[in-house]
Amino acid sequence: MVNLVNKIGIVSRCDHVDALEMVKTILKKFGSKVDIALSPMTAKALGVEGDIVVPVNKMRENGVKFIISVGGDGTVLRNISKMYDPLPILAINMGTLGFLVDVDPEDAIETIENVLAGFKYGERLRLAVSLNGEVLPSATNEVVIITAKPAKILTYKISVDECELEELRADGVVFATPTGSTAYAMSAGGPIIDPRVDAALIVPLAPFKLSSRPWVVPANGSIKVELTNPEKEAVIVIDGQHNYTISEHDVITLTKAEHPARFVRTTISGFYKKVQSKLA
Amino acid sequence: MVNLVNKIGIVSRCDHVDALEMVKTILKKFGSKVDIALSPMTAKALGVEGDIVVPVNKMRENGVKFIISVGGDGTVLRNISKMYDPLPILAINMGTLGFLVDVDPEDAIETIENVLAGFKYGERLRLAVSLNGEVLPSATNEVVIITAKPAKILTYKISVDECELEELRADGVVFATPTGSTAYAMSAGGPIIDPRVDAALIVPLAPFKLSSRPWVVPANGSIKVELTNPEKEAVIVIDGQHNYTISEHDVITLTKAEHPARFVRTTISGFYKKVQSKLA
Amino acid sequence: MVNLVNKIGIVSRCDHVDALEMVKTILKKFGSKVDIALSPMTAKALGVEGDIVVPVNKMRENGVKFIISVGGDGTVLRNISKMYDPLPILAINMGTLGFLVDVDPEDAIETIENVLAGFKYGERLRLAVSLNGEVLPSATNEVVIITAKPAKILTYKISVDECELEELRADGVVFATPTGSTAYAMSAGGPIIDPRVDAALIVPLAPFKLSSRPWVVPANGSIKVELTNPEKEAVIVIDGQHNYTISEHDVITLTKAEHPARFVRTTISGFYKKVQSKLA
Amino acid sequence: MVNLVNKIGIVSRCDHVDALEMVKTILKKFGSKVDIALSPMTAKALGVEGDIVVPVNKMRENGVKFIISVGGDGTVLRNISKMYDPLPILAINMGTLGFLVDVDPEDAIETIENVLAGFKYGERLRLAVSLNGEVLPSATNEVVIITAKPAKILTYKISVDECELEELRADGVVFATPTGSTAYAMSAGGPIIDPRVDAALIVPLAPFKLSSRPWVVPANGSIKVELTNPEKEAVIVIDGQHNYTISEHDVITLTKAEHPARFVRTTISGFYKKVQSKLA
Repeated sequence: MVNLVNKIGIVSRCDHVDALEMVKTILKKFGSKVDIALSPMTAKALGVEGDIVVPVNKMRENGVKFIISVGGDGTVLRNISKMYDPLPILAINMGTLGFLVDVDPEDAIETIENVLAGFKYGERLRLAVSLNGEVLPSATNEVVIITAKPAKILTYKISVDECELEELRADGVVFATPTGSTAYAMSAGGPIIDPRVDAALIVPLAPFKLSSRPWVVPANGSIKVELTNPEKEAVIVIDGQHNYTISEHDVITLTKAEHPARFVRTTISGFYKKVQSKLA
Repeated sequence: MVNLVNKIGIVSRCDHVDALEMVKTILKKFGSKVDIALSPMTAKALGVEGDIVVPVNKMRENGVKFIISVGGDGTVLRNISKMYDPLPILAINMGTLGFLVDVDPEDAIETIENVLAGFKYGERLRLAVSLNGEVLPSATNEVVIITAKPAKILTYKISVDECELEELRADGVVFATPTGSTAYAMSAGGPIIDPRVDAALIVPLAPFKLSSRPWVVPANGSIKVELTNPEKEAVIVIDGQHNYTISEHDVITLTKAEHPARFVRTTISGFYKKVQSKLA
Repeated sequence: MVNLVNKIGIVSRCDHVDALEMVKTILKKFGSKVDIALSPMTAKALGVEGDIVVPVNKMRENGVKFIISVGGDGTVLRNISKMYDPLPILAINMGTLGFLVDVDPEDAIETIENVLAGFKYGERLRLAVSLNGEVLPSATNEVVIITAKPAKILTYKISVDECELEELRADGVVFATPTGSTAYAMSAGGPIIDPRVDAALIVPLAPFKLSSRPWVVPANGSIKVELTNPEKEAVIVIDGQHNYTISEHDVITLTKAEHPARFVRTTISGFYKKVQSKLA
Repeated sequence: MVNLVNKIGIVSRCDHVDALEMVKTILKKFGSKVDIALSPMTAKALGVEGDIVVPVNKMRENGVKFIISVGGDGTVLRNISKMYDPLPILAINMGTLGFLVDVDPEDAIETIENVLAGFKYGERLRLAVSLNGEVLPSATNEVVIITAKPAKILTYKISVDECELEELRADGVVFATPTGSTAYAMSAGGPIIDPRVDAALIVPLAPFKLSSRPWVVPANGSIKVELTNPEKEAVIVIDGQHNYTISEHDVITLTKAEHPARFVRTTISGFYKKVQSKLA
């Protein structure tokens, strides 16, 4: 329970008029009641300057208690990935279907008012990603490794805690958190994982071997992936936001991130209800 | 680590000559070194009587440190289900492909000798099952609820910790442990779950709704299933061994069993290697 | 194009008040304009006797040009299976979702009026079924062979035109027509087959071998299935209506039936639109 | 039955020493018995010039009766795609697993000798492809339409004979022949189609809508695909050999090609046996 909310952050889609209008409304309505920090891109889109502008990764030390995200799942994912120890997110849904955006625009003001009076938040594990030892952004939904050349097969080896799980020929592979199990991993044929389960999900994309199956492995294990076919390039895509090109013998390591994503709890329905409504 | 092994139990398939011969060999080889307890059915098949005969559920209080199971997966599952707090099992594989039987007959004597000198064991969660409040045997692999009339659809409601997960029309549904994820649940299209993940797996059988997916939920939650279609009968099958007929408004509850199944650790390959060799 | 409609048949669900009321309405409205034949069961449910009562399999020689089916898919399937050379069916949908029932009750009278003025019909291939040489009812949707004991695996061999296709261990297997590809075969994971494709669909139910796949084979081939595991019983279910128990070494043969099912064409949407609306 | 074989063609992988050695052996063994035509690339790799060099698409009018393909499935597919009215192919398998290559190297000489004495061939339908009216190479296996940007979703509309089948959001879609049903379409989750079935197979890749299914449609229909999302690029890949970039509002049309692929019949096993051996 977070009780004293004296400062909030705001991030927004910047290519979307309604989203920016919503930010203005929030500023007008709450600007006199609490301190507000705007992300640099949102501030720029609004033509605002000065102390109010705070980079997302500095908002915690700046005293922000939670961040209002105005946009879709992409806005939420992009901004969480900027934080090593993520602030709780309250996500207002601007016209995009999503699993991470809870609050409809017409309920935004009332919801924010309630949350300012104190709030609880849920935690969702993230996957920390490194490429040959170099740290990449952590994933709230998933890490996809996929062939760079459409319809050309990749070969890769996956191990968990030094035990080889499989050598696979496939278009690619999805490593998802439980949160991401209802996103891309699901299109690829994976199961739905309750976010309380401490696990990572591995789903091959168009695997050559017909007996290949999705795997659910411990989140606190260490997952290693190595490309094994010569002269093939692949792409790592994190949360659909960050892309990196890799090639033979590059090693990707996934572990449970030290700090989870956090989401402000609203009165909106729980995980199962959301799955039912979105997948019906 | 269990160090002082002064008493072991033996259970066996009784309709299989080679299995009974193996039991005789074990008795001859080890009878003078450690105390031995035989299950009543095994004793009867061998024509043995007296104090050596101990019901499986009394073996722990009788001082038995581990049980040698001679047969296939069925023998292992049937005997674990008799114990509220299961003794570790060392399973010798008599001609049946299985995930729970590790030791080939030709390695049996050497393996038992090693284990007698001290052993470690792994734990595998089980699902405790109750029907309208009455306790049924716990499941090491899975609980299947299936239509009693072939090809007639069932309707049932599943909830997890009082949250409704789905109302489904299907031939049935499989609730599996991670151990059971490589058994019947896999044929039904479920993912493979690493046994270290603390979760239960729910897989619908031939669901009417095409968007139905397997679910992975916390093992320490409480799963409730209720049949909702009138005048239909269904059958509960636990580990392929125990059958119960149910009908409308019967409520089945699944929780994590207080005591897990236990398996003696041998030098035989780990979970991933076993999956690879069995599913290749 | 059938032009001169001077006699129609009517069949109905008999356990459904609204269906019987609809039959009465049709009799009242059209009884003076065309000759009508009632199936014995429908007649009995209405308390009607005399020459108007004609068994469904005699309706063609009795001069009936098409049959109005009042009920759901089951009513349609059950009555088609009674005819060696099926009359066209016009199916009025009484409250049950179905792929074979086109006409909503409120449109029934107008549609019948239009059809009486002349109609076209579409043809859908059926599967002729024999068991050890004895003829069983033909299938408009599918033939399911399924274990008689819930959750106990069957072993069976399938060959097409004397070429062995597979020996399978599974709960069962579905042999569907293209029409049936949107029914039970779909729940079992089969593809959707356009009814113009001259093929039969084979879908295993919970197959033990993970690489098992649905097969699409020529409809005018000869499909043979033989149970190969000893001491196991299985059930054949034709169109969800007719059940037969079989055991080891029984041979089921499926071929394209000489006469297809026939459906009166209405202005209602085509196959693809129907799939979209029902599966959305 | 083709009886009088007085001229044969040879095509080969050119980046593979063993393949070129095999071509030399064939030339030496059969060069004095029948006329031989070499494809330009094969001739160049061997350093051969003169009248013996004949483009693959001229081989039929040049009197060639069948073509020996030395390599893998890619060699077969690439060369068939050069012919409007394909000559029968006899495919010698140089180290690559494949469904289209029948003859092992050690059986090559004997097989060719037998075939020269007269042979039968099987026909496999191909898909003719056009892009905005312009003719592209026909597909023996499949046409894949796939997002050009890894892990970014495509939106496209598919219609068959002017009836809209589906509007899909997915990574892409595979349109396969029955021959191609055991290639990429199978990795994507499609059924196996007996090559005697006159149908095309449509399989979405990682579709957003969970109820999406593979479709089997008449081969002699006209399949139209239109990209509908703005500012997204996609790639068409034909038989894994030919790539074309497309964008919004481009229309791809698929119809049954006028001339099928043809394969020389050897004593090698039939389709079902091949599927069994390759997919075991």
